[in-house]
Amino acid sequence: MSINDDFSVRTDLALEAQEMRVQPEQSKSQPQDGVTVDEENVGDITLTYVKVDEAGAERIGKKPGNYITLESLAIRKQDTELQAELAKCLSRQLIKVLDLCGIKETDTCLIVGLGNRNVTPDAIGPLVMNEVLVTSHLFELQPETVAEGYRSVSAVAPGVMGVTGIETSDMIHGIIHEINPDFVIAVDALASRSINRINATIQISDTGIHPGSGVGNKRKEISKETYGIPVISIGVPTVVDAVTITNDSIDYMLKHFGREWKEKDSPSNVLSPGINPFERKTLTEEDMPGEEKRQAIMGMIGQLDTNEKKQLIKEVLTPLGHNLMVTPKEVDSFVQDMAYVIASGINSALHKEIDEGEAPSYTRF
Amino acid sequence: MSINDDFSVRTDLALEAQEMRVQPEQSKSQPQDGVTVDEENVGDITLTYVKVDEAGAERIGKKPGNYITLESLAIRKQDTELQAELAKCLSRQLIKVLDLCGIKETDTCLIVGLGNRNVTPDAIGPLVMNEVLVTSHLFELQPETVAEGYRSVSAVAPGVMGVTGIETSDMIHGIIHEINPDFVIAVDALASRSINRINATIQISDTGIHPGSGVGNKRKEISKETYGIPVISIGVPTVVDAVTITNDSIDYMLKHFGREWKEKDSPSNVLSPGINPFERKTLTEEDMPGEEKRQAIMGMIGQLDTNEKKQLIKEVLTPLGHNLMVTPKEVDSFVQDMAYVIASGINSALHKEIDEGEAPSYTRF
Amino acid sequence: MSINDDFSVRTDLALEAQEMRVQPEQSKSQPQDGVTVDEENVGDITLTYVKVDEAGAERIGKKPGNYITLESLAIRKQDTELQAELAKCLSRQLIKVLDLCGIKETDTCLIVGLGNRNVTPDAIGPLVMNEVLVTSHLFELQPETVAEGYRSVSAVAPGVMGVTGIETSDMIHGIIHEINPDFVIAVDALASRSINRINATIQISDTGIHPGSGVGNKRKEISKETYGIPVISIGVPTVVDAVTITNDSIDYMLKHFGREWKEKDSPSNVLSPGINPFERKTLTEEDMPGEEKRQAIMGMIGQLDTNEKKQLIKEVLTPLGHNLMVTPKEVDSFVQDMAYVIASGINSALHKEIDEGEAPSYTRF
Amino acid sequence: MSINDDFSVRTDLALEAQEMRVQPEQSKSQPQDGVTVDEENVGDITLTYVKVDEAGAERIGKKPGNYITLESLAIRKQDTELQAELAKCLSRQLIKVLDLCGIKETDTCLIVGLGNRNVTPDAIGPLVMNEVLVTSHLFELQPETVAEGYRSVSAVAPGVMGVTGIETSDMIHGIIHEINPDFVIAVDALASRSINRINATIQISDTGIHPGSGVGNKRKEISKETYGIPVISIGVPTVVDAVTITNDSIDYMLKHFGREWKEKDSPSNVLSPGINPFERKTLTEEDMPGEEKRQAIMGMIGQLDTNEKKQLIKEVLTPLGHNLMVTPKEVDSFVQDMAYVIASGINSALHKEIDEGEAPSYTRF
Repeated sequence: MSINDDFSVRTDLALEAQEMRVQPEQSKSQPQDGVTVDEENVGDITLTYVKVDEAGAERIGKKPGNYITLESLAIRKQDTELQAELAKCLSRQLIKVLDLCGIKETDTCLIVGLGNRNVTPDAIGPLVMNEVLVTSHLFELQPETVAEGYRSVSAVAPGVMGVTGIETSDMIHGIIHEINPDFVIAVDALASRSINRINATIQISDTGIHPGSGVGNKRKEISKETYGIPVISIGVPTVVDAVTITNDSIDYMLKHFGREWKEKDSPSNVLSPGINPFERKTLTEEDMPGEEKRQAIMGMIGQLDTNEKKQLIKEVLTPLGHNLMVTPKEVDSFVQDMAYVIASGINSALHKEIDEGEAPSYTRF
Repeated sequence: MSINDDFSVRTDLALEAQEMRVQPEQSKSQPQDGVTVDEENVGDITLTYVKVDEAGAERIGKKPGNYITLESLAIRKQDTELQAELAKCLSRQLIKVLDLCGIKETDTCLIVGLGNRNVTPDAIGPLVMNEVLVTSHLFELQPETVAEGYRSVSAVAPGVMGVTGIETSDMIHGIIHEINPDFVIAVDALASRSINRINATIQISDTGIHPGSGVGNKRKEISKETYGIPVISIGVPTVVDAVTITNDSIDYMLKHFGREWKEKDSPSNVLSPGINPFERKTLTEEDMPGEEKRQAIMGMIGQLDTNEKKQLIKEVLTPLGHNLMVTPKEVDSFVQDMAYVIASGINSALHKEIDEGEAPSYTRF
Repeated sequence: MSINDDFSVRTDLALEAQEMRVQPEQSKSQPQDGVTVDEENVGDITLTYVKVDEAGAERIGKKPGNYITLESLAIRKQDTELQAELAKCLSRQLIKVLDLCGIKETDTCLIVGLGNRNVTPDAIGPLVMNEVLVTSHLFELQPETVAEGYRSVSAVAPGVMGVTGIETSDMIHGIIHEINPDFVIAVDALASRSINRINATIQISDTGIHPGSGVGNKRKEISKETYGIPVISIGVPTVVDAVTITNDSIDYMLKHFGREWKEKDSPSNVLSPGINPFERKTLTEEDMPGEEKRQAIMGMIGQLDTNEKKQLIKEVLTPLGHNLMVTPKEVDSFVQDMAYVIASGINSALHKEIDEGEAPSYTRF
Repeated sequence: MSINDDFSVRTDLALEAQEMRVQPEQSKSQPQDGVTVDEENVGDITLTYVKVDEAGAERIGKKPGNYITLESLAIRKQDTELQAELAKCLSRQLIKVLDLCGIKETDTCLIVGLGNRNVTPDAIGPLVMNEVLVTSHLFELQPETVAEGYRSVSAVAPGVMGVTGIETSDMIHGIIHEINPDFVIAVDALASRSINRINATIQISDTGIHPGSGVGNKRKEISKETYGIPVISIGVPTVVDAVTITNDSIDYMLKHFGREWKEKDSPSNVLSPGINPFERKTLTEEDMPGEEKRQAIMGMIGQLDTNEKKQLIKEVLTPLGHNLMVTPKEVDSFVQDMAYVIASGINSALHKEIDEGEAPSYTRF
């Protein structure tokens, strides 16, 4: 068994799960049974709050709890100012989730950096673990040196089963049993269900991390249910498979033609002189054309819904050995920058004394 | 300008260029005007020899010369035995190309490892440069220590323009001017036009390296024409864009249904008891259905030829910012293993005294 | 607290402890109360077996148990053939220690790679952990895929307290508690008490790892006493302090003059035609001159014994900030090569099916 | 020939060369024939300006020219604030040297990062090269995008002869010939002649880099004489040999006793209540005792002068294989931090538009 087999789709974004079940004609922010969705923009960052209750959990297949998604192109654009903004925003959202979980300022934290440090797109967890401010040994050995406003924090990178031979969930259990933290923050790289989320999304959740149920429950989850203490997860999609890329591209083509038809019929198009040709184009669910048009563009494939289409593409690509899991070629700097953003966000969320703006200087050692 | 912009599609495979112009109904090995194609299998490795003359060059858009392609899943499967076989095979093919170029056993060589060592999928050149056996300083300073059967070899990794600020071709020119090698071997990572070639193909050519002509000739080529000495290139596709993945996947879907229709109608299918369900499926050009069927499956898109289809997908994805250039998530080990294979192949091709089988032990320092 | 403070002198070589208490006039292999010392040469490797009983433990300050030291210049000379020999020899000695500990072929093993992977001279443990063959997940999940002759092995690199905030001994305890291995192999970088042992010595012991007692017992040991299962340690000296370098150099100077005086008086010197001027010089305890001569060469300092001399040098250098802990400048390749040797040795010692000679091919993934 | 052999003592500090020739009883800042020495303190940084004319060059064995040395414990203490100060100070001194060389604001620069990137203590040059702001390709290809206040800068890391097989000086010559910069800044790791300068000193000079003349002139220098354009060197001592450590330690011991004797006789000692026991001790040339006392402490060795003593220690250690070249065990972070300081200093010195304080944000890409 190769180490790489171990980097399977460990989880995905609630935001995506929710979207998958929303019909095109529905607005994203429209409330649905058991799932509340709110959106907010902070500068260039889009925040989405998804709250899932028991009923919603059943419907969209995600555990009940709170999911906050931050969307930003700070990493992909390699824009250091936007990255600093993203770290600050992450810090504030993380504080919200700590509050939701009832975590107090003096509660002790164990940060778990999941993933394989030798596989770059899977290394975000270990890299974050390396860069966060760790204090628990100071509280233990030299309590007099720890200033007010700091919390006791430990951090581990347990590795992956392909390298250690040990179920990651078990290893964490052993460590928690030994050091008794009050809560856990688990950082992990994710597989994305959408090409536009790669390295452009951070999801915070209070539901922990739940490996695919298909693996026969052999890999246990990392959650409050398992350990008896709150587990806050921070996940970043860094990889996507060829099936998803193909499916998304087909959808974009359908919407592209849908938009074109709409605009052709719209008189406003001709009149608007202010169109900025440099603005980045976006396509929305509203652009998806009706079934007849979809068939004209894409034949039988165009008529399938997302699940059917993905299933079909998968059935074709997998036996050929071409359903590669891929990552952008700039993976080295993307992963390093993202780890830096997350470590900064965690540092200023955990330690009251660390100002958001100064958090970066705590990440280097 | 980011360092990553610099890693553009520097070249592509002659094999692919040839295939793109071959109609589905034509056999791959059928001779065509100005292009000779021969295929051979050595163990698990498929060798393709493409010889392009002036007429063929015009037709397929590749420079006239010899192109040898080695296809093997040794790297993707992380199979060290197959990798050793691949290194041996590469060595033998490289010797052929040295002969074709009229290079003698005592001719001195400069190995150029192109690419950006800080961007993993672009780091094959610098990694190979680091691992080849270098001897020219010994010939210069301690000639008495160099045994028979070794050649004078130098090696440089000039970096990329985004990092150095210097046109790579110019930097190599300056170094050649100074040290006067008899020939150059240039190793580079390539962008692939096909999902199935990523980390599964090595191309050797005597035509040098020719960056896309679209960039306005600002980036000059690395070739005999530029330097006046033979330039042998070794290229490995390590990245592919989302357009190509989508285009290939659509083609596989069309062929998939084409094959199904054919097999449904074929009586042999029912009778053949020997079908091995574990055999990896392959689809060939013969499976591509006719136009009517293509339209039924894929509508308007299904009727486009490859160039039109790719162009369309590109026009949709690029303005959305989703035509990502991607690499398999196992990029770290793929690139390391491939560099090791190429360095071993080069070492035993260049130095008569180094046995193919022992070449690997010369790659570590 | 910096991460580097954490890399203190975790243990040292029993061989050195023993030598420190031996008077110059005594032969190294002469038996002493409670300590048995045997020496053997295997090719270029010098093996020393030290057995310490309770009485000896008291006298030399090392725990009772077995200590095997392998001395070889394979790493410093960067000689790959000698390194392969060293790996084989290590494997055989490790098997001896497994037998001494009563470990059976089917007993399960946890390999612990101690040290900080971000501090190169302290990274041997984590590097070994990365390269050993790990099988316990296969025994657990796919027992049918594990061939005869393999043992269930897990591996962890727990990190260092400066990075994790967690007492290393506690973290290991938690993991052992969870996965219940039958025995532990702990690999660690050591500080050396002698300049000639740096990267030239491997010590195997069945006594575990015992951090300096001076730290107030806050850092607990990694041993059978702590965990209730055998703990075999493999240690490699990779750093040395300026005090030791100075002390050793002074002793070499004293011995140098001692040897010169002796040879001047010896008629055999003139007569021996067979002196090989290229042979590497060695100086032994026998070359140390008497007190009077020592005073002539080195004054008051020359009259001090090793402990007094080291203490004095330390008292001078430490307040000046100049008692640096240093490592050879070739640390990157030394540490990488040594990790490779140790991983190979462990692999063939643990898995009966892995031939000594083929062990290296199991270390790459 | 190993790559490591290539990392010989490429140069050393003028400051040290000067000190070596100064008799103990002379004050450091006392003017001597042909060598002017000035000292200044800026915060925690000690600046020494050494100006050597032809006469002085003859006497101290350093080329005539200007040498500025910055001494600071910012790196060794891993203090990021002090490191920012050091970068600013470096920038200002570098501007002085640019002025001394008559370099104008629009003159184009080639930065050369010397050394072997795979040998950490020798990697400062390549690391700096990776982090400086490079603009020449923008001036060439997109001049409209370059703002006022920026200079055209290129950067290369030519590697070392053991890896490339090419004389480094020749490779740089070829590149200069091709791109015609107006001046060169060469960054290199140095061997130190003193234990207290390791990673604590930066030397700027307008005399270029001059490899040891003992190698028979085969390795040519990197200087104005060779290339016809100004060559400014920035050097950092990162390694020291065992001989130097021993010699320095012996001297510190002599001075230690010298100081003790003096203080014992001094009535002020008894009276001074304000001695701060936490202040770091320093010993100066004034503490060195007279010959008689040196002999009492250190016998014959104590009477040797520095050159004789070093020569003797070398003669003893080298044949034993123990004259190791070593580097502090924290080499990874020291080298990374130092590269960051130097790149920041270069960036704000070369580009008027880059404020000293903001320079660090230009070093990440």
